[in-house]
Amino acid sequence: MTQGFSFEVQATDGAARKGEITTPRGVIRTPAFMPVGTAATVKAMFVEDVRAAGADILLGNVYHLMLRPGAERIARLGGLHHFMRWPYPILTDSGGFQVMSLAKLRKLNEDGVTFQSHIDGSKHVLTPERSMEIQALLGSDIQMQFDECVRLPCSDAEAERAMRLSLRWAERSRKAFDSARGQAVFGIVQGGAVKSLRIESARALSEMDFHGLAIGGLAVGEPQEVMLEMLETVMPYLPANKPHYLMGVGTPDDIVKAVARGVDMFDCVMPTRAGRHGLAYTRFGKINLMNARHAEDSSPLDPESSCPAARNYSRAYLHHLFKAGEILGMMLLTQINVAYYQELMAGLRAAIEAKRLADFIIQTSEAWARGSQSGD
Amino acid sequence: MTQGFSFEVQATDGAARKGEITTPRGVIRTPAFMPVGTAATVKAMFVEDVRAAGADILLGNVYHLMLRPGAERIARLGGLHHFMRWPYPILTDSGGFQVMSLAKLRKLNEDGVTFQSHIDGSKHVLTPERSMEIQALLGSDIQMQFDECVRLPCSDAEAERAMRLSLRWAERSRKAFDSARGQAVFGIVQGGAVKSLRIESARALSEMDFHGLAIGGLAVGEPQEVMLEMLETVMPYLPANKPHYLMGVGTPDDIVKAVARGVDMFDCVMPTRAGRHGLAYTRFGKINLMNARHAEDSSPLDPESSCPAARNYSRAYLHHLFKAGEILGMMLLTQINVAYYQELMAGLRAAIEAKRLADFIIQTSEAWARGSQSGD
Repeated sequence: MTQGFSFEVQATDGAARKGEITTPRGVIRTPAFMPVGTAATVKAMFVEDVRAAGADILLGNVYHLMLRPGAERIARLGGLHHFMRWPYPILTDSGGFQVMSLAKLRKLNEDGVTFQSHIDGSKHVLTPERSMEIQALLGSDIQMQFDECVRLPCSDAEAERAMRLSLRWAERSRKAFDSARGQAVFGIVQGGAVKSLRIESARALSEMDFHGLAIGGLAVGEPQEVMLEMLETVMPYLPANKPHYLMGVGTPDDIVKAVARGVDMFDCVMPTRAGRHGLAYTRFGKINLMNARHAEDSSPLDPESSCPAARNYSRAYLHHLFKAGEILGMMLLTQINVAYYQELMAGLRAAIEAKRLADFIIQTSEAWARGSQSGD
Repeated sequence: MTQGFSFEVQATDGAARKGEITTPRGVIRTPAFMPVGTAATVKAMFVEDVRAAGADILLGNVYHLMLRPGAERIARLGGLHHFMRWPYPILTDSGGFQVMSLAKLRKLNEDGVTFQSHIDGSKHVLTPERSMEIQALLGSDIQMQFDECVRLPCSDAEAERAMRLSLRWAERSRKAFDSARGQAVFGIVQGGAVKSLRIESARALSEMDFHGLAIGGLAVGEPQEVMLEMLETVMPYLPANKPHYLMGVGTPDDIVKAVARGVDMFDCVMPTRAGRHGLAYTRFGKINLMNARHAEDSSPLDPESSCPAARNYSRAYLHHLFKAGEILGMMLLTQINVAYYQELMAGLRAAIEAKRLADFIIQTSEAWARGSQSGD
């Protein structure tokens, strides 16, 4: 292990774990949800409010940051933490996922990927070595191996090819990781929806000297049951003493089910993206504030929320802000959603500690289904 | 005077006045700048931060609020203060200005204006009586007479016709003002760029029982000298014991020059609109953060600003946020600009009190012209 990075499981309830990742920039309470700070900002949110909502760690995107403002520029400006004024831990993805989903004219070979920027068409190359270099330039605390993520559904042959390439890239990434410029590097399990491939990937990665293991290539279009089945397949093969990170997941329901299966870390744009589009995540489930029934509803989204915005503003006001296209609507709802996700994680951690996770999940799911008194 | 509304001039320096307007919802320190909260929000700003920046009073727009969400709806939801969670004074305009600048298919007659909403084409009527009713429904503390504002340049005959109509509407507005549902109502001097018309308007309004007098129809396209000339013409005819409000003004330079001529209140979308477009107002003048020279500038906008965002974030970060189209850029710069305007007003008030306004204006203007060390 790198000096300063450690993971401790403090309590378990079935497969679920409650623990702490310790890094020089702070402790990450797990299960943890990482708000996504794509372009050096959690969209529409002051960074102080991200912290106040309870987040211990943010995720930054290599693909976006390498294109704009550029990794070398961020390094010259003192690194990503200083640039965006977030002194706590940051995990960076490797760029692999966004190269596949956003870039134009991709060309993939054994060495890496050549692609055109979706912003200005400029040509760039990502290899395992360059991805790790970028993550080091950004000053990322937890770095991810460079991998190839395929969309589901895909053929077994395609899933196998990408999984094996990702394993070779995992070795190169691990080797390129510079422990003087980062606290930890995680490997990423691939293998599509094929159990045997997932197991092979998990086994191979477990033998490499990674500080944590991620499950990639899920929540990319497959039904939730497939995602959960893959999780159940993979989990027994992941080292119990290392953090398990389910990438890009997900809805509150995805999260509670994955926690119950042993996942420690999550990231997803859902709370922030939904917040910019008038969708609230609350104890009462998902609430669409664009809906006309909120126009004269003077009740707040959740009078018991830890987030002042959820307690203080009426649904009518939030409805008005979204109807009028006002930025304040996005600001308030992003804050509300990020706070709800953090509250949910805190609830999961407390439930695991108390060994009453099953009850917590039932009660939480029933509350979502029941909706609020306002009829959601 | 209505119970609870009073104005006191506490110090003068030449024509400039430093004072306080007292209302049941709080004291307004004058000269005052009112951030514009068009649609029940100061765009891209949390209302707590508007207060923290030093604002004593906000402006709300009758035209926007009557169309969306509607004055009766806001009244049912507890009034504008409760709706947007701003418990301090609010001044509302009468809708006249925006009807002229935004609405479609306007038809004006002695009674009022019939127009189509720019949002959905729906038909609406504004008369002096309806404007006052809307302002009362909103719960506005300081209400404005309904007037007709002409664009400059215009013919003398057109300026005269609109001025006389506005005087007749002033009488109807004053009569319709309900002191049980508002603290004060202000008349509005019109008359285009014609001195004799401005004087006639000011004289006639001074004889009506208004709680304050506004100068309207300026900063609508004319050169600054014309605006200042009209101010100098009108001021001697306005009651010295009532607040003088220059509507829709302006740049920091407009404001200091108008304060020197006896203006007590201002409003303008400039600090908020500029903030959403990458333009910063600072002690060093106007700074365009979209400019490439800021890309690697690690210095803050103003290390001595009262606004943390101006002190803490690098110009490079703000530049990046605007290049990337990130909402956080608008949030930070709006806050910075609103804070700068409030700092400027505080500086003007202190300078009047110390009878050194002329020096303050010279030093402030020189600092704008000099720019910052970063070469702006």
